[in-house]
Amino acid sequence: MEGEERGGWAHPYVPKDLELPGYVPCFLSQMDIVIPYLGSTVLLVSLVWFFSGRSKLTKIDRLLMCWWAFTGLTHLIVEGYFVFSPDFYKEKTPHYLAELWKEYSKGDSRYVGRDTGILTIEIITAVLEGPASLLAVYAIATRKPYSYILQFTVSLGHLYGCLFYFIAAFLEGDNFATSPAYYWAYYVGANVWWVVIPLLIATRVWKKITTATQAGKKLKAV
Amino acid sequence: MEGEERGGWAHPYVPKDLELPGYVPCFLSQMDIVIPYLGSTVLLVSLVWFFSGRSKLTKIDRLLMCWWAFTGLTHLIVEGYFVFSPDFYKEKTPHYLAELWKEYSKGDSRYVGRDTGILTIEIITAVLEGPASLLAVYAIATRKPYSYILQFTVSLGHLYGCLFYFIAAFLEGDNFATSPAYYWAYYVGANVWWVVIPLLIATRVWKKITTATQAGKKLKAV
Repeated sequence: MEGEERGGWAHPYVPKDLELPGYVPCFLSQMDIVIPYLGSTVLLVSLVWFFSGRSKLTKIDRLLMCWWAFTGLTHLIVEGYFVFSPDFYKEKTPHYLAELWKEYSKGDSRYVGRDTGILTIEIITAVLEGPASLLAVYAIATRKPYSYILQFTVSLGHLYGCLFYFIAAFLEGDNFATSPAYYWAYYVGANVWWVVIPLLIATRVWKKITTATQAGKKLKAV
Repeated sequence: MEGEERGGWAHPYVPKDLELPGYVPCFLSQMDIVIPYLGSTVLLVSLVWFFSGRSKLTKIDRLLMCWWAFTGLTHLIVEGYFVFSPDFYKEKTPHYLAELWKEYSKGDSRYVGRDTGILTIEIITAVLEGPASLLAVYAIATRKPYSYILQFTVSLGHLYGCLFYFIAAFLEGDNFATSPAYYWAYYVGANVWWVVIPLLIATRVWKKITTATQAGKKLKAV
């Protein structure tokens, strides 16, 4: 396979025989990539928390708004970029989002390899769940009656996506990480939030709706 | 690629270069496969409709029970067989479920080719959505307060699965059917029910829950 490399840089990804003609290595260090992401997340969460404090919302609702704002913007900007940039690994300038995906692919080379399953999940996430997450911020802030069921819907989407993500990797031998450190930090560590938090939200809404259904006994036929 | 065929039968699937060593053609005709499936569906639906008539359930709830019984058993038996039978296309006897998947693969060769994305979706469908669908039959019959949210959950699973199914095929060139007739009858025709019916159910539950949330105004914190 190495004979087929077209004089470009050797890539760091696993499996080694993954063909990435035109690959250009990361310009930014891991810290250059991770710190701005964490920094803007902290800033975003602080802003949502601060401004939602001027309302009469409960602390749980304000925390939920922080989550939906964070996950919605991640879906739209970070994952949206991935969906529409098949050639990100050839990027010759230190484009932040290209660098982020070059770096993340060390934990899961299915991204740089543009695996169809991954791309499909990311399309659903960026195009449907991104806008729906931001709608959830608005729905909580304005106490819309559809707020709970919307949060439940997007959370189930997160859970289905993560389930697919981990099962599909397992079926193909779970060998897409450059090293165990990247496996645990990126493949597991960066994704587990989208399992734990949606599970908490879905359970909360399930209980609330079951209680409401019980209270309302027979709901009117719609 | 043809040189690599190991003296077995030529398969009818598209793409032609799909390698299926040990492939054994269908023993049963299309009608031999489709009629028993439709027949047992009609029988099942009739039984559920008949026995649910002895209760005070509404006609909509009885119809929903028919749907959940049908889809649940399809997930468990038909799709469950696929999940645990990677070699169904080598089956040398007229095993009904092997025949069914050999036949269905004429509309979508990703099944006989055991595409990872398809297998992942089918695992989620057979293992989680199958039992959950049968639980929905029980929940409707016994008017459990979680009946609506459970139906909503499984319907979203159906919709996510179908969305994945069609998007992933599109991304890979949408060329998995032996002929346009099989494309429309199997790939589209057999799957569209799991788009239309879950969409109707999810919309109905969404409206009911939104109404209940409005009626209950502030639901008690759980």
